[in-house]
Amino acid sequence: MSTPIKPRILTGDRPTGPLHIGHYVGSLRNRVALQRDYDTYILIADVQAMTDNFEQPQKVRDNVLEVALDYLAVGLDPQQSTFVVQSMIPEIAELTVFYLNLVTVSHLRQNPTVKTEIAQKGYGESVPAGFFVYPVSQAADITAFGAALVPVGEDQLPMIEQTREIVRRFNTLYAPVLVEPKALVSETGRLPGLDGKAKMSKSLGNAMYLSDSADDVAQKVRSMYTDPNHLRVEDPGQIEGNTVFAYLDAFDPDKAGVAALKEHYQRGGLGDIKVKKHLLEVLEATFAPIRERRLAYAKDMGAVEQMVKEGTARGREVAAQTMQAARKAMRLDYF
Amino acid sequence: MSTPIKPRILTGDRPTGPLHIGHYVGSLRNRVALQRDYDTYILIADVQAMTDNFEQPQKVRDNVLEVALDYLAVGLDPQQSTFVVQSMIPEIAELTVFYLNLVTVSHLRQNPTVKTEIAQKGYGESVPAGFFVYPVSQAADITAFGAALVPVGEDQLPMIEQTREIVRRFNTLYAPVLVEPKALVSETGRLPGLDGKAKMSKSLGNAMYLSDSADDVAQKVRSMYTDPNHLRVEDPGQIEGNTVFAYLDAFDPDKAGVAALKEHYQRGGLGDIKVKKHLLEVLEATFAPIRERRLAYAKDMGAVEQMVKEGTARGREVAAQTMQAARKAMRLDYF
Repeated sequence: MSTPIKPRILTGDRPTGPLHIGHYVGSLRNRVALQRDYDTYILIADVQAMTDNFEQPQKVRDNVLEVALDYLAVGLDPQQSTFVVQSMIPEIAELTVFYLNLVTVSHLRQNPTVKTEIAQKGYGESVPAGFFVYPVSQAADITAFGAALVPVGEDQLPMIEQTREIVRRFNTLYAPVLVEPKALVSETGRLPGLDGKAKMSKSLGNAMYLSDSADDVAQKVRSMYTDPNHLRVEDPGQIEGNTVFAYLDAFDPDKAGVAALKEHYQRGGLGDIKVKKHLLEVLEATFAPIRERRLAYAKDMGAVEQMVKEGTARGREVAAQTMQAARKAMRLDYF
Repeated sequence: MSTPIKPRILTGDRPTGPLHIGHYVGSLRNRVALQRDYDTYILIADVQAMTDNFEQPQKVRDNVLEVALDYLAVGLDPQQSTFVVQSMIPEIAELTVFYLNLVTVSHLRQNPTVKTEIAQKGYGESVPAGFFVYPVSQAADITAFGAALVPVGEDQLPMIEQTREIVRRFNTLYAPVLVEPKALVSETGRLPGLDGKAKMSKSLGNAMYLSDSADDVAQKVRSMYTDPNHLRVEDPGQIEGNTVFAYLDAFDPDKAGVAALKEHYQRGGLGDIKVKKHLLEVLEATFAPIRERRLAYAKDMGAVEQMVKEGTARGREVAAQTMQAARKAMRLDYF
């Protein structure tokens, strides 16, 4: 009996900072669940990180192994998931350059995700060309490893569609050698920042990291945004926009318990300190083991590096095969 | 006594068709003269050719060795000049991707050369992204081989300036590892097409090729554009816009003889047939030996391929060193 071949998926992160519990809820947790059933490639996307951090290369460099540590900590298993450093796969750059021929400037300009990001960053026409073309670079990431599926949130669907267009164009023009990936839209949550803002992010300074110590976590929970009008314990409190309850929804497995707490809080008589104490326990149940694994792995960074090195070598082999096929399809295979 | 180090130059051609005598006057002749004093790298730029020929990859492929044959035919010596196939140097693609971060979209839009070409090709906003960013790709070509000088015509100066800007940006942001090239503006001629149009080009169907047979050349000279109002031998003829005299200016070493012919033609009494007969002799004096060398080399295409292969391998070594230095400068040298 042969082992059934698992469909391949590609995911990844930009190594611009340590991963936080928003990443955990948004994708890492899901990846851990997927790795048993899917041949998982995880790209530590330092080249993409450089597109808008090219002035801070040291930051990108320093976070490559940190991100790998985060992966190991949450339970991504290098036996099941292949960790690949993007900049060490020249084939991705080669495919990017050829794919750029298959997309027009006006089409890139209309990409909704990039459009939004350009506006957010205030780039206007001064957008660095590398950032502007990053959907093409992502198409190269996905296809280099022949990924059949890409786990994404709804907001990332235009990126996958862009990849699919490039693949169809390439396969039609040259030869059908590229895998046309599908989006694997997963039910993942989105965690607000500690300050109640919609997004948790390093730059907003409102994140709780997988690498945070127990003290950090306790301190962050204490300062967490709740209902600013809930001044006395006996007063009724608001659930909407209350970060503590958003986090309980995301992490407390006892749904009935959370419902009862919410009811009590809204009725009045439940203080923030008490709810936060409960949240801290809930968070620790999830993140204490992750933190401990992280600390254990961090004791031997040489071994972590070795894991990343081996994953990158495996990834390179796959990408080289893709590039060879692409080169042959384009008739540019000379000798 | 050690051999003095020759400064390195980079030139090249897009393999989209056989090279013609316009290329010879515009650059090839000059390159042959330069190769003794300069460490010459010549890029057979198939990746760049794909930016506006991505729908005809076979044409690009077929012309790679044809262009190499043209080089050998005009006297470029693979012992002195290194012939490199662009698509076989992944480091060029890698550098391109990183350089894209250092240039904005609006800056690329203002590049005069690209602007003109986009207008000529009628692309508008539908310009393929690969074509739009090709000045960045050229910066990667030049710097990958550490070229100190780039022989160009005046019209190519903006491209060299773009490369210089990228190099300065890179060297300032990361570390001074890239060579900032200078333009080597040479006195080269520009040959009109056989039909009198300003430009000789394959697509206009008005070119005389280095690979043309003696019969082809004779036939093309016979049909060459002269003075359409010069109907009878005894009539005065026009020199301005008369292709035959433009070619004599370019190829006839006997300047006094040409001056006398012009005078006679303008006075009347000198027929087109006679001038064309003289031009044919002049052209044959230059191009018959080139044609013969081309035929001789073409008998052993395996040897031509081997030469290109060896040049490409030498080029790859240099480019790999540059990439290693660039990677280290960007702190992306992990293991």
